[in-house]
Amino acid sequence: MHFDPASLIFNQAGLIPVIAQDAASHEVLMMAWMNAEAVARTLETGRVTYWSRSRQSFWVKGESSGHVQKLVDFRVDCDRDCLLVLVDQTGPACHTNRRSCFYTAVRDGDEVELMKPVE
Amino acid sequence: MHFDPASLIFNQAGLIPVIAQDAASHEVLMMAWMNAEAVARTLETGRVTYWSRSRQSFWVKGESSGHVQKLVDFRVDCDRDCLLVLVDQTGPACHTNRRSCFYTAVRDGDEVELMKPVE
Repeated sequence: MHFDPASLIFNQAGLIPVIAQDAASHEVLMMAWMNAEAVARTLETGRVTYWSRSRQSFWVKGESSGHVQKLVDFRVDCDRDCLLVLVDQTGPACHTNRRSCFYTAVRDGDEVELMKPVE
Repeated sequence: MHFDPASLIFNQAGLIPVIAQDAASHEVLMMAWMNAEAVARTLETGRVTYWSRSRQSFWVKGESSGHVQKLVDFRVDCDRDCLLVLVDQTGPACHTNRRSCFYTAVRDGDEVELMKPVE
């Protein structure tokens, strides 16, 4: 079946959540958002492109930092309201310069830092 | 630092997106939502508990299906507006009886089914 970005379920702001997972290590790197046009651009260019809610503009991941995400596989969930992109991640995915945005764990009621920023 | 669920950033509906990942295989299983009370209950009971937007009620994953998620690790992202739970998943995570909700890939413009429901 041909895939149509318009067949996805977007929220009231026209956005869908996207989970980025490292295709090699399977580490979950980050979660961000796409609109229908960002979905189309990601599939067309193979460069993962989000919609920045703070800047209200397209966000080609790594465009300024060089920490690009090359699309390896693009997946849709059962409800068509969430996406999973498997990516080839150059450098850290997180703006704090850590590999993953999920570097804080909650263990026994306390926050624990799991990884340090890359030097 | 002590973790306080109220320190998370919830959306206008009082919810935060939660990614569930298989702690052993690292497969991304599903994405759902929690409110602050669901976060607290998950940490307290070790049973992953979401907030069902359709039913507007707490949803102890697997309560009716038996496909429970035992919490293995609980992680918070850099912006504190997304959670990642590593889980010990009993049976399929998806309501379609597939291991993961992300069973559809988009390849060369077409949708491809990656896994079948468990018999």
